[in-house]
Amino acid sequence: MDTQASFRYEQLAELIIGMIDNGTLAPGTRLPSVRAVSEQHNISISTALQAYRLLEDRGVLVARPQSGFYVSTPQRGTLALPSTSRARSKASTVSISGAVAMLLDHASNTALVPLGCAVPDAALLQSNRLDAALARAARQHGAQYNVYSAAQGEADLRREIAKRAMRIGHALSPDDILITSGCTEAITLALTSVATRGDTIAIESPTYVGLLHTLEVLGLKAVELPTDPSRGIDIGALAHLLETERVAACVLSSSFNNPLGSTMADADKHELLAVLAQHGVPLIEDDVYGDIYFGRERPKPFIALDGGANTIYCSSFSKSLAPGYRIGWIVAGAWMQQVKDRKLAFSLCSPTLPQVALAAFLASGNYDAHLRSLRRQFQQNLAQMTRTIEASFPAETKVSRPAGGIFLWIELPRRFDSRELFDKALDLGICFAPGDVFSASRRFRNCLRLSAGHSWNDSIEAGVRRLGQLAKTMLAR
Amino acid sequence: MDTQASFRYEQLAELIIGMIDNGTLAPGTRLPSVRAVSEQHNISISTALQAYRLLEDRGVLVARPQSGFYVSTPQRGTLALPSTSRARSKASTVSISGAVAMLLDHASNTALVPLGCAVPDAALLQSNRLDAALARAARQHGAQYNVYSAAQGEADLRREIAKRAMRIGHALSPDDILITSGCTEAITLALTSVATRGDTIAIESPTYVGLLHTLEVLGLKAVELPTDPSRGIDIGALAHLLETERVAACVLSSSFNNPLGSTMADADKHELLAVLAQHGVPLIEDDVYGDIYFGRERPKPFIALDGGANTIYCSSFSKSLAPGYRIGWIVAGAWMQQVKDRKLAFSLCSPTLPQVALAAFLASGNYDAHLRSLRRQFQQNLAQMTRTIEASFPAETKVSRPAGGIFLWIELPRRFDSRELFDKALDLGICFAPGDVFSASRRFRNCLRLSAGHSWNDSIEAGVRRLGQLAKTMLAR
Repeated sequence: MDTQASFRYEQLAELIIGMIDNGTLAPGTRLPSVRAVSEQHNISISTALQAYRLLEDRGVLVARPQSGFYVSTPQRGTLALPSTSRARSKASTVSISGAVAMLLDHASNTALVPLGCAVPDAALLQSNRLDAALARAARQHGAQYNVYSAAQGEADLRREIAKRAMRIGHALSPDDILITSGCTEAITLALTSVATRGDTIAIESPTYVGLLHTLEVLGLKAVELPTDPSRGIDIGALAHLLETERVAACVLSSSFNNPLGSTMADADKHELLAVLAQHGVPLIEDDVYGDIYFGRERPKPFIALDGGANTIYCSSFSKSLAPGYRIGWIVAGAWMQQVKDRKLAFSLCSPTLPQVALAAFLASGNYDAHLRSLRRQFQQNLAQMTRTIEASFPAETKVSRPAGGIFLWIELPRRFDSRELFDKALDLGICFAPGDVFSASRRFRNCLRLSAGHSWNDSIEAGVRRLGQLAKTMLAR
Repeated sequence: MDTQASFRYEQLAELIIGMIDNGTLAPGTRLPSVRAVSEQHNISISTALQAYRLLEDRGVLVARPQSGFYVSTPQRGTLALPSTSRARSKASTVSISGAVAMLLDHASNTALVPLGCAVPDAALLQSNRLDAALARAARQHGAQYNVYSAAQGEADLRREIAKRAMRIGHALSPDDILITSGCTEAITLALTSVATRGDTIAIESPTYVGLLHTLEVLGLKAVELPTDPSRGIDIGALAHLLETERVAACVLSSSFNNPLGSTMADADKHELLAVLAQHGVPLIEDDVYGDIYFGRERPKPFIALDGGANTIYCSSFSKSLAPGYRIGWIVAGAWMQQVKDRKLAFSLCSPTLPQVALAAFLASGNYDAHLRSLRRQFQQNLAQMTRTIEASFPAETKVSRPAGGIFLWIELPRRFDSRELFDKALDLGICFAPGDVFSASRRFRNCLRLSAGHSWNDSIEAGVRRLGQLAKTMLAR
């Protein structure tokens, strides 16, 4: 999508959203007529109408026949929020591998309605410019780059990532960065740098299945901290844990964690950092969803708040641009030497040409426009998915209200069995992620995660509705 | 190089080499005249002369003015072979990271005479067809492949690798193979599947620095087995070790190990496998140099001899085609599930497009011609390097006679300090690998490894001569 000459209707739409966000336009307010707004903003009537229609599509406005457009009453009030998960003070060994393999197999099955996948649809990721950069680099400079990259990664790519660091509010130099095979390798390098087999790691609960799998393979124990679907982990519970048990590290999503989508306020982040620093426990933060925010500002990762003193920052381009390229990065501060040693031992270095291509793509300046378009798309997908859940799921259903990311977390009454729903749904060609795979202690069996990584369409809408009907039937028994 | 219409003079040259290898043409024999051979083989005089000149370049023939071409007396008799390394029965922790970083930094410095590098010059690797396949895949199918690959890797690539398995004498199916980030990740996946921190691993001595680094990072101890520069490790010493100590695995190069270039006879390989099987100790074999053989047949890896019952096979395309692509593979047999779990945790999966491109390149059938040309080139490089060493190094110098690979191992009297030579050589713009980086216990300080991964030229020849002169001066003190 060309966002350079960018769409005056989108600018108008964003202005209106801003006025709603800051309270200028309250729910139920009637907006100026299309004609009035076109005169005020010196735009055509069709452009003004396009803006209103876009906001209607997103559920921000509602059109009333013969009356005009009104700020809609927040959709997201119909269903309650999921509960804060309960503390589990005992560290547990992890045994999740079977679930990971099962989930990956089904999530990559394109014949299924894709509510289980952890990455966005390639059609939304619009990698064509990146792919063109790769083709150019391979054709023109293949021999030049047919060498081992530096262990830290290609300097040009690290420079481009460092240039983008102002967006996360933390100055970085290319030397601070090491290129990894996605965020997965970044987290593994971080964990193996600060912990050894048998150590205990504090994590969110629920958290993403890949992290649980990594803990299992590395022989690390997990303590699952109570986590609120809006505000993130319970800092008091963390403080209590650190006073009673030796913890080697804490692993958290910086923003919009998978699966809850919760966001910790800056003040809470500061408090959490203080608690960790007091006990000398490093924080490993996973910021893969940070760029997919729906508010007006990108949330600050922890590293921007503590200056990296006690934080290892991990991220990737897998959720926002190129899962197929397997490029992530890590900012390891005091642990950089350990991380570099482990990179050399685990994979030596990352492939050269994909790094060169990504550096060229980032240098072209197209990434920000791409991210803006992606955020709008995901926000719209999630809004439509939320409305469909509200319309079709049992009344007792609770659903998360993420301010970013691509997932919804759904909680049903405790007697509900999402594994049974999973099997029934698979029979109908629908895939999602059952809740228990997000816990080392296999809780959340009454929950499920739906992914909104694909453009909303009739098949997806029908899939969500069908899940809701199945859930109703199951609960009615 | 186009080897399809391939060069009748090369066919003639190979025929002559074959007759020398099988003893039909003894050293010192005068060859038929150029005119006679052109008539015998129905080729032009210039083609026949080209074949003779090629063999002269390689040191196989010598031209005597007014007399003709003669089979040369083996060049490789002038200097003795390096000694078999001595046993070191005690397992030692490894601390080599500093050396690895040092070596990688210098080896990638293109301003230096490249005798220290572990990969061939990109100019020899001729990756242009592979790069074209990558450009094509990215341009035409970028979106299709902008997804996570299967954890085991792209099916097409695994199929092509399985098809090539007949060349190593062991039938494989695509399901037996998992794609890795080079042989480095393959070895790490294997080691972490069969051993845990504190365990002891039996290795060759000297062995490549990357393996020592990996053992260090994984907290594994090394027992360095005596290794003969021609015949490989001392099986008796291995048997003795296994009777006296618990060993979690044995890691060996299948053929032409780095740095010695030694080759174990098939009978010895069988015996070694029997010893390991008797003690239930798995063998992890590294076959990255197996395709770079100078004899008439590719040496069999261990997996072809034990059917994979007790062997984990690791290899890559880094030494023969594409170090920049970071593609290797592992055949893990009974340990496949553990390996797959670790792949998921360490890097999730490998980048998709490079795998697709490599599959297309292999399917095109050009790889074998490429390998033939590469083998000739490396054999020639090593022959010329050997001659230059014989002409310029001290008389007490011992040098390896590898039957494949890209390295020479040089041993000087025990008082010689290759670290001092290293510093002096760097000052003169020459890089090589000092011997002590190839040992966990920092032996071999009187040895050095020279790489013949670049086409022979005046600068490389002058660099080798200069090393020889420096060594003479140092020994004369």
